[in-house]
Amino acid sequence: MARMTQDTAADSSSEPDRVEGAPTLREAAVLAGGGEAPTARHLVSIDDISLQEMHALFRLADRFAAEPRAFAGTCPGFISASLFYEPSTRTRLSFESAMLRLGGGVLTAAEMTSSSVVKGESLADTIRVVGGGYADVIVLRHPSEGAARLAARYSPVPVINAGDGSLEHPTQTLCDLYNLHVERGKIEGLDVVLAGDLKYSRTVHSFAYALARFGANIVCVPQAGLELPDYVVERLHEDFQVEPMRADARRLGNLASNSDAVYLTPQKPHQLSLFTDARGWEVQSVDAVYMTRPQTERHSGAELSETTYLRLEKRAMAAESLRDAVVMHPLPRRDEISDEVDADPRSIYFKQAARGVPIRMAILAWLLGRVPLESAGEPSESVESYGVPVGPNPCPNPSCISRTETRHAEPRFRILDRDPLRVACAYCTRELSHAVIGCSRSRIFHAPQAGTIRLILPEHLVFFGNEEAAVEAGFRPAVGLTGH
Amino acid sequence: MARMTQDTAADSSSEPDRVEGAPTLREAAVLAGGGEAPTARHLVSIDDISLQEMHALFRLADRFAAEPRAFAGTCPGFISASLFYEPSTRTRLSFESAMLRLGGGVLTAAEMTSSSVVKGESLADTIRVVGGGYADVIVLRHPSEGAARLAARYSPVPVINAGDGSLEHPTQTLCDLYNLHVERGKIEGLDVVLAGDLKYSRTVHSFAYALARFGANIVCVPQAGLELPDYVVERLHEDFQVEPMRADARRLGNLASNSDAVYLTPQKPHQLSLFTDARGWEVQSVDAVYMTRPQTERHSGAELSETTYLRLEKRAMAAESLRDAVVMHPLPRRDEISDEVDADPRSIYFKQAARGVPIRMAILAWLLGRVPLESAGEPSESVESYGVPVGPNPCPNPSCISRTETRHAEPRFRILDRDPLRVACAYCTRELSHAVIGCSRSRIFHAPQAGTIRLILPEHLVFFGNEEAAVEAGFRPAVGLTGH
Amino acid sequence: MARMTQDTAADSSSEPDRVEGAPTLREAAVLAGGGEAPTARHLVSIDDISLQEMHALFRLADRFAAEPRAFAGTCPGFISASLFYEPSTRTRLSFESAMLRLGGGVLTAAEMTSSSVVKGESLADTIRVVGGGYADVIVLRHPSEGAARLAARYSPVPVINAGDGSLEHPTQTLCDLYNLHVERGKIEGLDVVLAGDLKYSRTVHSFAYALARFGANIVCVPQAGLELPDYVVERLHEDFQVEPMRADARRLGNLASNSDAVYLTPQKPHQLSLFTDARGWEVQSVDAVYMTRPQTERHSGAELSETTYLRLEKRAMAAESLRDAVVMHPLPRRDEISDEVDADPRSIYFKQAARGVPIRMAILAWLLGRVPLESAGEPSESVESYGVPVGPNPCPNPSCISRTETRHAEPRFRILDRDPLRVACAYCTRELSHAVIGCSRSRIFHAPQAGTIRLILPEHLVFFGNEEAAVEAGFRPAVGLTGH
Repeated sequence: MARMTQDTAADSSSEPDRVEGAPTLREAAVLAGGGEAPTARHLVSIDDISLQEMHALFRLADRFAAEPRAFAGTCPGFISASLFYEPSTRTRLSFESAMLRLGGGVLTAAEMTSSSVVKGESLADTIRVVGGGYADVIVLRHPSEGAARLAARYSPVPVINAGDGSLEHPTQTLCDLYNLHVERGKIEGLDVVLAGDLKYSRTVHSFAYALARFGANIVCVPQAGLELPDYVVERLHEDFQVEPMRADARRLGNLASNSDAVYLTPQKPHQLSLFTDARGWEVQSVDAVYMTRPQTERHSGAELSETTYLRLEKRAMAAESLRDAVVMHPLPRRDEISDEVDADPRSIYFKQAARGVPIRMAILAWLLGRVPLESAGEPSESVESYGVPVGPNPCPNPSCISRTETRHAEPRFRILDRDPLRVACAYCTRELSHAVIGCSRSRIFHAPQAGTIRLILPEHLVFFGNEEAAVEAGFRPAVGLTGH
Repeated sequence: MARMTQDTAADSSSEPDRVEGAPTLREAAVLAGGGEAPTARHLVSIDDISLQEMHALFRLADRFAAEPRAFAGTCPGFISASLFYEPSTRTRLSFESAMLRLGGGVLTAAEMTSSSVVKGESLADTIRVVGGGYADVIVLRHPSEGAARLAARYSPVPVINAGDGSLEHPTQTLCDLYNLHVERGKIEGLDVVLAGDLKYSRTVHSFAYALARFGANIVCVPQAGLELPDYVVERLHEDFQVEPMRADARRLGNLASNSDAVYLTPQKPHQLSLFTDARGWEVQSVDAVYMTRPQTERHSGAELSETTYLRLEKRAMAAESLRDAVVMHPLPRRDEISDEVDADPRSIYFKQAARGVPIRMAILAWLLGRVPLESAGEPSESVESYGVPVGPNPCPNPSCISRTETRHAEPRFRILDRDPLRVACAYCTRELSHAVIGCSRSRIFHAPQAGTIRLILPEHLVFFGNEEAAVEAGFRPAVGLTGH
Repeated sequence: MARMTQDTAADSSSEPDRVEGAPTLREAAVLAGGGEAPTARHLVSIDDISLQEMHALFRLADRFAAEPRAFAGTCPGFISASLFYEPSTRTRLSFESAMLRLGGGVLTAAEMTSSSVVKGESLADTIRVVGGGYADVIVLRHPSEGAARLAARYSPVPVINAGDGSLEHPTQTLCDLYNLHVERGKIEGLDVVLAGDLKYSRTVHSFAYALARFGANIVCVPQAGLELPDYVVERLHEDFQVEPMRADARRLGNLASNSDAVYLTPQKPHQLSLFTDARGWEVQSVDAVYMTRPQTERHSGAELSETTYLRLEKRAMAAESLRDAVVMHPLPRRDEISDEVDADPRSIYFKQAARGVPIRMAILAWLLGRVPLESAGEPSESVESYGVPVGPNPCPNPSCISRTETRHAEPRFRILDRDPLRVACAYCTRELSHAVIGCSRSRIFHAPQAGTIRLILPEHLVFFGNEEAAVEAGFRPAVGLTGH
């Protein structure tokens, strides 16, 4: 079986961006019975959409929100399929409501894991069948990270990621951004407080990246011990030139009294000097407070005793700096927002959920090609990835779809940096760790910092955890490596 | 936490008809994204509908039944959501069929309890999200008594009760009444036999109240030991002036041979004298036999051995008094109607179920404001209720929604009688029992029969199980009460 | 209770083709609220459709496949109900997609066994309720053999069998045939390889019968030990004059290297002489390879070690005889087709699944009376069956619906042959075994080979496992039988 994998990978090395056995887009169109546009656009990650496209989606959602029942003629005869490999009734109903409002039909598979479809059937096969003729768009929820990326490779019709493990949930992020757009008229330059569990909620991480991309400022008010991880702060800096600063949060009052607040801003240092002093940036007035629930399912018991978790109450909202702040929450909430806050006109979390429908109407109508986006400009450049030509799957993430979907998900990686070489799994985006790097053509392996690595074509790169593994796979050490 | 509850309740005492934290109707309309009529009409109890409205619904259902597929243009772009916290496929499919026949869309959450939506999320929050933008009407099935009443308080869109515990199932009752209307052309004055388990089936109780309200007569033919409870008979008398009489059921033949039949009639005594003799009222000819199944899930084993349960067979239907009687059953049936009766033209139970669709079409089209009711007159006056301002939840019913939905369902009561004071839970309608009654303003408590109680405003009434509890809550006894 | 069954059966003997208690078609129409055509056409078995009708369905499916979204006006206001007593998401979604494409509505009951509908409710009652007013067509999946046949007897609306145990799955067979029609332009005269588990897959048996009926030739390439059963080969011979021959499969290469291939052909012997020699018929060129998965759920562990199961790989497809062969599979597949074959243009299994939608659109539109079949000719004659007038259920099949649906499914049989008398269960088609045969009128029993049996009317035939059972039931032996 191992040999088989190698052969397959070797064949595919001449066609770098294509899983062996997967249909090309042209073939996919044929599978779909002809007629389909051969270039289905997917929504797997928030990174798949350009800022211009997001603005255009917001404008489209505005139209839908104004008259939610006036667009039943938009998608007649079209069908969406909700394939949910883990239950999430709220997300599912939101998408299905959007499709019904557009006049389309809905296929529901709410509990795929208990169904015979998946008894031994690969995700890739299910996607090819459902996307091949049953439905015009697939809404996928899956517990494995990268599952939606895999599905998009095999689907002749658009795939929308409705949550893949803890990796991405792009329509939730779009919904949150759309709410800021509606409530504030813009996103750039806003000051947004992220409060609560900032460590384990990847949805919050996605939201933070998106805020930075729009040029908004972030005030982190973490639960003690659940601060924003360093790798998120680093990516914010690398990708969006965000500067983290110590924040003086005294004006936030009760909300931040037990928290070491941090201010993250894409503003240039010379601009910042106007608002900062020796103590760091001073929080003046906030546009939005985004509360999050404790991700208890990912905590060890020691990290959090729930009784002490941050709680937004009436008196916290009395702080002057929050006078014009809207209160947001992705819901469901538990105790982190007191019921007494519900009646406060600044509480928009139920409106926020309701707006999930028009923004998803916009996404569906756009991906189905029923409504063009106004002046959306060029789409985001899609990420190039490469099959792993030799050896075992280098992805270290046990929740990655490439580890369970072994029949179809050929291990793949994409390049983060060339010097030194840093690569990540093309499905779950987890960075690979490796001790030596080989070339599948020359069958020679190198130290990771060797300059010659830059000469190896991406589709020939092989990653080994140690020299022994490389030798065992039939590779020889480069001159200067002992290879013992 | 207990203190918090008290504070919240105290705040709300100035706004008596409103749960703290719940949106007002105006706010609810805003939550729904504007546009919604601010006065959503709900169907929680059969008592919510006036007789005139029921007659108008029957006429509307007649039109739908005549051409079931001719009304697909009635609700285009409208969406109903089936939120089922316990399974009931028949009820769900009946509602969904009705909505589809009207041209609307359907969202289905058939197993809410196994879904992530409800992991720690309150019913009130779920209702606000689904009613806030996903759906235009909510069909709710819930195991807790009073759940639909609670949902209606929080929903910006109409809530239809599809069964809340064993409390109410108003569309089943409407369907049964509609069948009598179709088969007999009227309901007033009909003689209807209720047979079987009359003790535990609350659906039968609702049906009995409704029959009395329409002026129909009821012949009770109970399974021995499962007679109509006294409190039902009392309410029939109090609310509808129904007189219970011993019935001479010999003409009912086999059907009543082992049963002590009782005749319940809203007719005036002087009218009755025509039909009665020393043995009581004599059953002459019956318009309908309504069979019920044993509510085995609510029996102790001793109360019923199933083999001896009443069974309607061919020869029972040969009784002269049943010559023109239709046979009804809410289904599913088990053995209480023999299969051989199915082919009898008087057996209408399958027709009865089928008519659930047009009557539910009428309810949906009406509540969604798509079809006006002809000359429906004024709606039933809605029941006024009051929050409990201090102390623990006085509702003694462990199945009441107010006991589990503690985050949002503030304990509430409504007044049944003023002298002596009798009050019932505003959710589950169970009457409260209390030893002393306090006033939350004066902080004085009284004996239940004290005349001064009439001077306390309803929103200041507090109920205590005993004097000690009142003292512990900081109340003082009125003059003449020892307060030890 | 036993006596009751006998009485019921005795009554019904005067109305031979009708279950006591079941509505006649006229009554069924009445149950449905009038209006319905009194002659609902069902699809229980592939045998229910004539060849002409199948050709007409294929032409209709061609139109739907050409423009899948252009027919949303075909079934407005119509509703299909998916009643699935065991999960089969793929089949369900395929039917629901078809109904939505036709503009109809869909009711989904995906897990009937866990629902309250079936708690003690008979299938016959559920069908009468759902078919009586909720839906215009019922798509039924059930684990018991013959369940769809039973449902069709009670349903006022068309019933489509979406799989009843391992008995029939006619729309799968129609889909397979439709694929041959599309890919090859005809079915008659094609050479089709059936490969893999030919013993336990009843779907393959149905496909084989249908191929023979169309005049196609079958090359059996079974997994060793899982050959086509003798009774299938015999029926192919009896019903379709198919001649089995030893096949020389050397030209099939790897695919058949471990298999004793057999050739089944409806061709006349004088035609065959052109293609055969001493070694039997030589496989020259194949039109289609139909791979099947191991039916592991029906194997004892000894019959199959999965590692050795037949596997279709790239090099097998290199055989010259397969140059123009399409590869089919009913899906889901496991390892019996290698992923590397997916990209081969001859692999049509994903297209095959996608074509399940237009063929099911054709079936739905036809059965709902929305589209007439062009020149479909006369329908297949429906099978006549007879109630068992006396004694216990003679069907020996423990999975037969007649054994569990005892409240409504009167035991019935149909006659396979008159001399000697051979009869089969009218539900599951399993042949009955009996030692003696009685007449319910004369109360005399006979040996199975007795000539007098031919004089007994079908509706009076009684089957006993032995003489003792007959005597116990009050029957006397015919002259010449000892009856001890």
